[in-house]
Amino acid sequence: MSELPALSEGKLMTSGDDPMEWWEPAAGGVSPAFRSWLAERSTMTSCEVERIRLDELRGWAFDETTGNLAHESGRFFVVEGVHVRTTYGAVAEWYQPIINQPEIGILGMLMKLVDGVPHCLLQAKVEPGNINMMQLSPTVQATRSNYTRVHGGGGTRYLEYFTRPGAGRVLVDVLQSEQGSWFLHKRNRNMVVLVDDVPPSDYHYWLPLHEVRRLLRIDVLVNMDTRSVLSCLPSTFFAGSGAVPANSAMAAALARSASGEGPSHRSTEAVLSWFTEAKSRHELAVSRISLRDLRGWRRTPYEISREDGRHFSIVGVTVRINNREVTEWSQPLLHPRQRGIIAFALRIINGVAHVLVHARFQVGLLDAMEMGPTVQCTPSSDAEQRPPFLDLILNAPSERILFDTVLAEEGGRFYRAENRYMLVEVDDDLPVVPDTFCWVAVHQLATLLRHGYYLNVEARSLLACLHSLW
Amino acid sequence: MSELPALSEGKLMTSGDDPMEWWEPAAGGVSPAFRSWLAERSTMTSCEVERIRLDELRGWAFDETTGNLAHESGRFFVVEGVHVRTTYGAVAEWYQPIINQPEIGILGMLMKLVDGVPHCLLQAKVEPGNINMMQLSPTVQATRSNYTRVHGGGGTRYLEYFTRPGAGRVLVDVLQSEQGSWFLHKRNRNMVVLVDDVPPSDYHYWLPLHEVRRLLRIDVLVNMDTRSVLSCLPSTFFAGSGAVPANSAMAAALARSASGEGPSHRSTEAVLSWFTEAKSRHELAVSRISLRDLRGWRRTPYEISREDGRHFSIVGVTVRINNREVTEWSQPLLHPRQRGIIAFALRIINGVAHVLVHARFQVGLLDAMEMGPTVQCTPSSDAEQRPPFLDLILNAPSERILFDTVLAEEGGRFYRAENRYMLVEVDDDLPVVPDTFCWVAVHQLATLLRHGYYLNVEARSLLACLHSLW
Repeated sequence: MSELPALSEGKLMTSGDDPMEWWEPAAGGVSPAFRSWLAERSTMTSCEVERIRLDELRGWAFDETTGNLAHESGRFFVVEGVHVRTTYGAVAEWYQPIINQPEIGILGMLMKLVDGVPHCLLQAKVEPGNINMMQLSPTVQATRSNYTRVHGGGGTRYLEYFTRPGAGRVLVDVLQSEQGSWFLHKRNRNMVVLVDDVPPSDYHYWLPLHEVRRLLRIDVLVNMDTRSVLSCLPSTFFAGSGAVPANSAMAAALARSASGEGPSHRSTEAVLSWFTEAKSRHELAVSRISLRDLRGWRRTPYEISREDGRHFSIVGVTVRINNREVTEWSQPLLHPRQRGIIAFALRIINGVAHVLVHARFQVGLLDAMEMGPTVQCTPSSDAEQRPPFLDLILNAPSERILFDTVLAEEGGRFYRAENRYMLVEVDDDLPVVPDTFCWVAVHQLATLLRHGYYLNVEARSLLACLHSLW
Repeated sequence: MSELPALSEGKLMTSGDDPMEWWEPAAGGVSPAFRSWLAERSTMTSCEVERIRLDELRGWAFDETTGNLAHESGRFFVVEGVHVRTTYGAVAEWYQPIINQPEIGILGMLMKLVDGVPHCLLQAKVEPGNINMMQLSPTVQATRSNYTRVHGGGGTRYLEYFTRPGAGRVLVDVLQSEQGSWFLHKRNRNMVVLVDDVPPSDYHYWLPLHEVRRLLRIDVLVNMDTRSVLSCLPSTFFAGSGAVPANSAMAAALARSASGEGPSHRSTEAVLSWFTEAKSRHELAVSRISLRDLRGWRRTPYEISREDGRHFSIVGVTVRINNREVTEWSQPLLHPRQRGIIAFALRIINGVAHVLVHARFQVGLLDAMEMGPTVQCTPSSDAEQRPPFLDLILNAPSERILFDTVLAEEGGRFYRAENRYMLVEVDDDLPVVPDTFCWVAVHQLATLLRHGYYLNVEARSLLACLHSLW
């Protein structure tokens, strides 16, 4: 038992945790009705998550042939290994576990207009990896295993609006990647469907979009899938939600940037060419290998982790939840060691707000590179090589920090994974940026988001947060 | 020696082959100056290609550990194996060799305007797999191995226009896939750069775009890379080339379709949603395996082929060419057994021409599926399951056949690979199409081609051919 890391005490969450406690200070603009609804969901729900030994995972086993950690049904996901060699970055070669989940799931949000005001149907959802209990997910969050009922549970509510043609007007329908450092080629179908009206279930709530924008400023409340889906929503919906007046130069510059009214620093063609060039410049060879052949990693009864303790480990949990289709199961989760920093530098160029994107290789991305945030790192892990602009972000004076909230990553696959998301305004006298960086206007990002695999999930989260600023 | 297939006699091509012989009938509208220039290049060039045993390939060997056929430098490409399982199509599982070439090469075309008329700088180029001797390639056709000089040859002419920022105006710069049934995740950087003027080398020629469009109607002349690059060129350039008057209802309907003036059958959002849905519907698991572990395939001294002789084989050649940077080498090539049919059905809907694209899984595509032609098959290989619309295409009355030309695939990797490319107008009373098919307007395809991995290389070739019709 001495192997069990100190961080991971037995029971993590129980019913009765009050979400109000931690978000009270930031909750201005959120209706009391929604706040009591969410508090009530918390009371109605009980959830227990326990760290267990990897060999106690029910239905999961290390495959004798492949050495990988897989479910006996062959579905859900597999924890396997990769061997990476690249000409990009400071580290030329490494080994790591990775989550392989080849199925395409649906992240679907229903929207409706009430007197012209857009509303989103959000779900209060418990996930085993959450550090708090409940977060707000899109209307539907379903893996293919979920909705083809591999685990024998009930059907997924509202799924038919996303799978049945003509059930509403499709506003967004695009495959987007997820954490490229932790997932191998994972992608989900991000959908928004506009409907006339649909009654909410016990765990669903119709919330005006302008309130959802407010909620993004509250720590670990709006989950990753909701942020991803929101980022793909056309900017006109944010402009239309109208609850956040343009009360500063930056808000006005953001509105211009989102509408495409002002000049962009570089044309969209030039941005695309910059990105194509960046993709072509380096090579990345990723070989799938057995989980047992990872050099520099070790397996204990409780986890698979690096010998130097850095980055992340693979752990096992058993879960009991009373409000879901399946109330008890166990599964592996990926457990990052530290909280990361994920930040966009913002700058007003000719009256138009621009964000500084970084063309970033990640081992699990389908085409190796997507555009990421200006800074995306865990500061202590990256200590030997300080990423560009990290100090600029961390040392920014408080009046330049436009957004600063801790948000969680997918609680269905990651154990207590959270990052500090920041939007920071920088000076006009910022020096010329390295050629893997590019200043891009918001409407240009919106154009790219009609297509998959341009913006990584961290950048999409930040873009959703950006929409809380104007 | 009895193993050497009858098709492949020793010397295939020698100097003095006259390209005029086979394209005389179709060469209307092509200037005599260009015709004699090309004939002269043919006379200036000698090329000998000889089939050899796989163990005679100089610099190539079957790796003892992996079993794969690779170059001793570790560059160029590797012939390896894949094991495929899928829920898509009639065959649920198979094994096959595949060419793995992870590097991103450049297919670059220089353009200039002469009195407002767009001109392309084309290259007369010999490739070992060509069935004729010379074809017309883009200005630059360079693998990363080429331009980083792994084979010790000279520099690539004009390469600096595509690698040096600011050398011209970048019109096209996008990664596009190549043959998804034969290449594993292959993609090249398709580029068009507009320059003021550049003097042509001995093997380069400035040709007006309207003549290039004419040349597309000549058998095996305009090579695959040129077709791919041309397909990515904005439609305005074709409209601007002005040499082909709108002399029929179809030409006018194509002009409207390219300009986006008339109504599209489905909105671009709906097309994107249709494609996302199609991608999500099936699963495709592709495992890389050793070339020696392919069930149903056998290796003889001369080739690796299927036991039933179908589809394609891997062969070896030695090459002597007098006009290239390296004049003698040997290499493996993929040799398809039969000529295929690649066709778009065209239909005028509300006065606007539409093509019928097919959402098509192919094992080597990065995201498994791209939009392909209406028909893409080798009729005899697919005999047990007749593809949809094949009979419609093959039985079309001659006045409905708008384009019918045999074109070659990449002669640097494929041995005598050619397909019959067809554009066929179909009746308005065509029944409702299966849901893996979609009618799309030309300007919608142009929008998609600003981004990678929407249209497969066969569909891009057809789109270039389509531009010879209006």
